[in-house]
Amino acid sequence: MKKNPRRRFLQFAPLAALTGCATKPAATEEEQLPSQLGKPLSAYGERSKYETAKRLVPEVKRPQIGATRTPLAEIDGTITPASLHFERHHAGVPDLDPAKHTLLIHGLVERPAVFTIADLKRLPSETRTHFVECAGNSGNEWKSPGAGDVVRGFGLASNTEWTGVPLRILLEEAGLKKEGKWFLAEGADVCKMYRSIPIEKGLGDAMIVYAQNGEALRPEQGYPLRLLVPGYEGNANVKWVRQIKVVDQPGQAKDETSKYTDLLADGTARQFSLVLDAKSVITSPSGGQKLAGQGFHEIRGLAWSGRGRIDRVDVSTDGGKTWTRAALQEPRLPMAFTRFRLPWAWDGQPVEILSRAVDESGYVQPSREELTEARGGNSQYHYNGIKQWKIEADGSVKSV
Amino acid sequence: MKKNPRRRFLQFAPLAALTGCATKPAATEEEQLPSQLGKPLSAYGERSKYETAKRLVPEVKRPQIGATRTPLAEIDGTITPASLHFERHHAGVPDLDPAKHTLLIHGLVERPAVFTIADLKRLPSETRTHFVECAGNSGNEWKSPGAGDVVRGFGLASNTEWTGVPLRILLEEAGLKKEGKWFLAEGADVCKMYRSIPIEKGLGDAMIVYAQNGEALRPEQGYPLRLLVPGYEGNANVKWVRQIKVVDQPGQAKDETSKYTDLLADGTARQFSLVLDAKSVITSPSGGQKLAGQGFHEIRGLAWSGRGRIDRVDVSTDGGKTWTRAALQEPRLPMAFTRFRLPWAWDGQPVEILSRAVDESGYVQPSREELTEARGGNSQYHYNGIKQWKIEADGSVKSV
Repeated sequence: MKKNPRRRFLQFAPLAALTGCATKPAATEEEQLPSQLGKPLSAYGERSKYETAKRLVPEVKRPQIGATRTPLAEIDGTITPASLHFERHHAGVPDLDPAKHTLLIHGLVERPAVFTIADLKRLPSETRTHFVECAGNSGNEWKSPGAGDVVRGFGLASNTEWTGVPLRILLEEAGLKKEGKWFLAEGADVCKMYRSIPIEKGLGDAMIVYAQNGEALRPEQGYPLRLLVPGYEGNANVKWVRQIKVVDQPGQAKDETSKYTDLLADGTARQFSLVLDAKSVITSPSGGQKLAGQGFHEIRGLAWSGRGRIDRVDVSTDGGKTWTRAALQEPRLPMAFTRFRLPWAWDGQPVEILSRAVDESGYVQPSREELTEARGGNSQYHYNGIKQWKIEADGSVKSV
Repeated sequence: MKKNPRRRFLQFAPLAALTGCATKPAATEEEQLPSQLGKPLSAYGERSKYETAKRLVPEVKRPQIGATRTPLAEIDGTITPASLHFERHHAGVPDLDPAKHTLLIHGLVERPAVFTIADLKRLPSETRTHFVECAGNSGNEWKSPGAGDVVRGFGLASNTEWTGVPLRILLEEAGLKKEGKWFLAEGADVCKMYRSIPIEKGLGDAMIVYAQNGEALRPEQGYPLRLLVPGYEGNANVKWVRQIKVVDQPGQAKDETSKYTDLLADGTARQFSLVLDAKSVITSPSGGQKLAGQGFHEIRGLAWSGRGRIDRVDVSTDGGKTWTRAALQEPRLPMAFTRFRLPWAWDGQPVEILSRAVDESGYVQPSREELTEARGGNSQYHYNGIKQWKIEADGSVKSV
């Protein structure tokens, strides 16, 4: 083959049909091909030095108390790398020795039991891919939707493959009493954060998880053990879990009274609104990005629901006047990120793009107006309104 | 709750029903719960200091040429962490700048084209989870099946989520000529490793991949671009891919003549045997492990096929006399690892355990004898015979 064929090939209008950018020369310098052997084999790989995606770490006084956000606009596919899974800590990440950590099951059970990690790994296991989303994700959208980009507005959600023991098996081992209606899951962080979960969830798809994306759970995700309650608000998926106490009524923890509840316009509050409603966001093009030019772009986004599978995602490229059904990446898994995509040709005019998810229960993601009408303007939690991005004539994208 | 309830609870026979290890005290020291705030938020997470799973790096003279192996026995679920995905390099890992790297499509096409990474990311994308397995995986089983454990015998296989552009789209952009029957994919490593692939695969499910498990492809997996040909032997999934040349016949590369072919007993050779046959292995209990005691154990393993989905995995716990159907973790994806599991009570007697996969094409994984009868004893590639582990009376597990 010829030594420097690129300039010639560009005359043949590569990408013409799809991107319409045929007349532009490629914006790359000539690549210097390697002239010697590359790097050697290694025991544990790292990403390229050219890759810098990172969680958004806020400027806070106490970096043990707060949250980092997943850079969803820089992630492809559906799996979130464990290194980029969002964090939310109430007292920092405890250093727990897996050889010493145990899980106690007690309260309204016949045979209280303590499980070591080795015990748990020996028991029947399951593997499932699920999102976890903080109830406070998109909280800024209630008051100021114009301020955000994807990471700030939606980055408190991530999606990984979890492996562990069904909690049902542990409750059966311990002999659940019929008076048991809720359980309290408590973490080993110094604040001993705990939450109340209906016993039906414990007998359903709740898991005690020890692995994530194939390897051991990461410290900031609860190493060595976390409770996973698929589709429930993030805070209920108690990390560093050390005890499950079966009780006859909820515990009214701080994080289910003063926090993670929604004060409605009539002065009452939504409490134990654990199941997260269907939601979606276009990750590309999205706030802060800039389109390279007119012509072909693939609109990409993520949709998820705490009620099961995503059934449909509609996308509008005219500010909500008309909607087109996006392609959904299979397999669509229940309570997991679903990647949606729509081929689109941009004509260079200012335009507003938005997405609307529908889940298998028939629930339709509401507009901001519909959501505010139903819930009032007091809450900072459980926001799942439709997100709109504006593309300016120069290709820049902003939140509106 | 009581301060030190563990000793008391053990009297209540935790795990008795499932593990039969009720009388043994838990082998852990008392856990010291944290007394102060834990570690702060971080931009890019790392695994726990207690976790040490790593790829098996061989002792070789030139660490740029060779392979590392995925520690499959230490991995849970189905996804392989990118850091632990096996490597196979012919000239080390090149350092490629994604701002300069390009992909050339040429040969028997109407409009040869060069694509930058930015071009490719703009085009229609797909996300799919697939295994990649080196044709040389389990090669040692041909001659000496007694020597291996899971990492040595099966660690040249991994399974991750890949995102990229269907190659079909690039071939259509370039205007594939009807004389084009094969394509040559060449990497940017210094040895310019290349392979010949039938054009039907290029128009089918082949992809040019730029992301893995949500983040950019790792350097040792081909950063910034690799060819993915799902179900084909690993070597054909050309890493650091820089050109696709459409041709009318295969290129007879070194790696498809002297290597990666099977010399049969009659002196002829299997060549371009690209599709990998169905295979399975029990990862736990497996060689080198030691069972903690009699009673309940979950037998766990992985099955995969280059022909599509795994349809069934049978497990024998009596050396192959009788077989029981294992549970398969859903979703079962085509050309992807499927996790299988079987609850099992060990009575403490010596026993041999083995697994047999059947894929959706009806192909049944052969015994070592059947495979050797069909292929003779000359090959070092494409071994997919049934693997047998022996558990001794003391719980130790070895390869047989």
